[in-house]
Amino acid sequence: MTLAAQYATRIGRMKASEIRELLKLLDQPGLLSFAGGIPDPALFPAQAFADAFQAALSPEHQAQSLQYSVSEGYLPLRQWIAAHMAKIGVQCGPENILITSGSQQAIDYLGKLFLSPKDTALVGWPTYLGALAAFNAYEPRYDRLRSGENQPPERYAQAAEAAGGRVKFAYLSPDFANPTGVTMTHAERLQMLDLAETLDTAVIEDAAYQDLRFDGEPVPPMLALEQDRKGGDIEACRTIYCGTFSKTLSPGLRVGWVVAASPIIQQLVLMKQASDLHSPTINQIVTYQVAEQLFDTHVAELRSVYMRRRDAMLAALKEHMPAGVTWTKPEGGMFIWVTLPEGISGAQLLERALEQEKVAFVPGQAFHADGSGENTLRLSFSNSNEPAIAEGIARLGHVLKTAM
Amino acid sequence: MTLAAQYATRIGRMKASEIRELLKLLDQPGLLSFAGGIPDPALFPAQAFADAFQAALSPEHQAQSLQYSVSEGYLPLRQWIAAHMAKIGVQCGPENILITSGSQQAIDYLGKLFLSPKDTALVGWPTYLGALAAFNAYEPRYDRLRSGENQPPERYAQAAEAAGGRVKFAYLSPDFANPTGVTMTHAERLQMLDLAETLDTAVIEDAAYQDLRFDGEPVPPMLALEQDRKGGDIEACRTIYCGTFSKTLSPGLRVGWVVAASPIIQQLVLMKQASDLHSPTINQIVTYQVAEQLFDTHVAELRSVYMRRRDAMLAALKEHMPAGVTWTKPEGGMFIWVTLPEGISGAQLLERALEQEKVAFVPGQAFHADGSGENTLRLSFSNSNEPAIAEGIARLGHVLKTAM
Repeated sequence: MTLAAQYATRIGRMKASEIRELLKLLDQPGLLSFAGGIPDPALFPAQAFADAFQAALSPEHQAQSLQYSVSEGYLPLRQWIAAHMAKIGVQCGPENILITSGSQQAIDYLGKLFLSPKDTALVGWPTYLGALAAFNAYEPRYDRLRSGENQPPERYAQAAEAAGGRVKFAYLSPDFANPTGVTMTHAERLQMLDLAETLDTAVIEDAAYQDLRFDGEPVPPMLALEQDRKGGDIEACRTIYCGTFSKTLSPGLRVGWVVAASPIIQQLVLMKQASDLHSPTINQIVTYQVAEQLFDTHVAELRSVYMRRRDAMLAALKEHMPAGVTWTKPEGGMFIWVTLPEGISGAQLLERALEQEKVAFVPGQAFHADGSGENTLRLSFSNSNEPAIAEGIARLGHVLKTAM
Repeated sequence: MTLAAQYATRIGRMKASEIRELLKLLDQPGLLSFAGGIPDPALFPAQAFADAFQAALSPEHQAQSLQYSVSEGYLPLRQWIAAHMAKIGVQCGPENILITSGSQQAIDYLGKLFLSPKDTALVGWPTYLGALAAFNAYEPRYDRLRSGENQPPERYAQAAEAAGGRVKFAYLSPDFANPTGVTMTHAERLQMLDLAETLDTAVIEDAAYQDLRFDGEPVPPMLALEQDRKGGDIEACRTIYCGTFSKTLSPGLRVGWVVAASPIIQQLVLMKQASDLHSPTINQIVTYQVAEQLFDTHVAELRSVYMRRRDAMLAALKEHMPAGVTWTKPEGGMFIWVTLPEGISGAQLLERALEQEKVAFVPGQAFHADGSGENTLRLSFSNSNEPAIAEGIARLGHVLKTAM
């Protein structure tokens, strides 16, 4: 067995970290990979960043750019984010915003803030595996969030209590979620807010992909919907919005943010101070400059490129997938979620796909807090051009036909 | 009362975060501040950073610099650090090194790795208040580490057990510690290693200021001494070394590192991955470039500038402090620790110093895990020139004479 195949055999019981190890191994010439959910580096606004770094290191700015700074984050960036949030329906000020090192750090801090061992976190089956990895450190119990299903709310509360804790939050990614690509409807969001209200629990809204809508009707963020219900008062909201520049400008700078009622932000600022003092000063300054200069036009370009790649992948799936295989039709983001017929293992399929056809993806089991989802897999279209997508999906179809 | 004075009255019972708030307020024109323990921004190697950022964003490197990267950190930087560690007596490879977002993050991760509620952390009285802030999140008990004193080791273990946990680590900063400026002798370091061995506990060596020795004989890091005792085998060592570029190149980039036995590093890598994926890619790349280019010559310059400032402060203290006031004579770093006669409060002195003489420092009580140290204060000489030091200490002496 090749090393990659050895990994593939094990992937059904792999942790997020191990899967990332695998994905690194898979970065080989000739391999067509739909595995990593990463932006296409050819689309980075690199010249704008180069100019902004030069400006930040000019004689009049270098002392500030290279020095310690405040834990809550660079004020002009927080003001820019407040204006950005207003465009998507959230009214907030800089005091409602903390700059984090990517939204991953916000997710970790929120786990640390809310969870004690045996508490319950409500998550989707499947959900973002980085969120599970962050929450796991605080030893919660997971319960399954069933969007659009009418389970009585008390069932969640009773099960949490029986397990020795309380429901502390619902974590969800309403737009083009990782890994499914699925978007929650307006009605589903309101229903989720009702559930959170009844359970008196926080809502963590992971908006990592929200800016990347290709088509369909935009749905307001959950925080916007809740603020609207609460008469415009963000201080009365229980939804905590996690944003990031990783999918729009650059993931390598690690700049994300949290928007919430100010008492929550104040607690998170203390946590930030104790955990790494502040996000890098210069990264915040240049992110502000680049966002101010080109955020909207740049995101428009990303949307049009990624949309063509999504279309290419959907067309190829339609052409090459055998009967019995189904997949999501995302309106944005980076992912398509594929469900194989019962009994076909995504992990075993990866092994064959790597050996026979040099094509890669992520088996879906790792995204499930309960270890289910064996017959699922995640495809990313963000970092492959259209010919590679057509060729790779054709190869995947070939492997699948011999496996079924 | 002025706002600053209101803060000063409260400072005796302030948290680290609140003190930082105060220090921000104190950043006013005309004020002579020895409060913040920060590098002089005029000494940043800004041109080298500007060149390195340009190189990192050149067409052939921009895709890597702006993209996600591995959690353990940029390999050339880890290799550079391994070579740097060899110069100070520690033999290790990149597999023994994790890049963190400043050494503050390393301290936080080690608290998270080792501490459960009611466990005991051994710390100095006083100690770095950022370490207390990080550890507090994991709800430990603190016991006082008495360097050079012959307390039977069992006393620590018995007290920890009686409190419902175990001694999980000793945290200390052997060279020019924040806040005291004191350096542990060779014999004290060996004695501390004996204690850790007897208690079977980890040693966290915070080496934030280690590169900034002005004079006196260098003492090997505790990790070097332990490795020497263990036949050169770093994998057998219990000491965990936390380094940083914040005091030498730039704090605003947030690049630090941990050196330890590889199983500990592997656990910390998983923690890093779950908490913020990785430190910013481009910051690691440029830090490597700048360190490779000028670390030794730049640190030599810092030493000579900061030494003159220390000398100016020691001379001014000798000239202006009334009898009964004592202070440390640091061989490096950024701090001098002042002990006032019993009954004179550092917090009250700050209030008067701000109002009467516009001079600032940090009262010492906050650095004590048990709230003692009321008659102490910390002076930083790193960010003031010699005339400002002479003038500020003269003012402080004047306030003290009226207070005593």
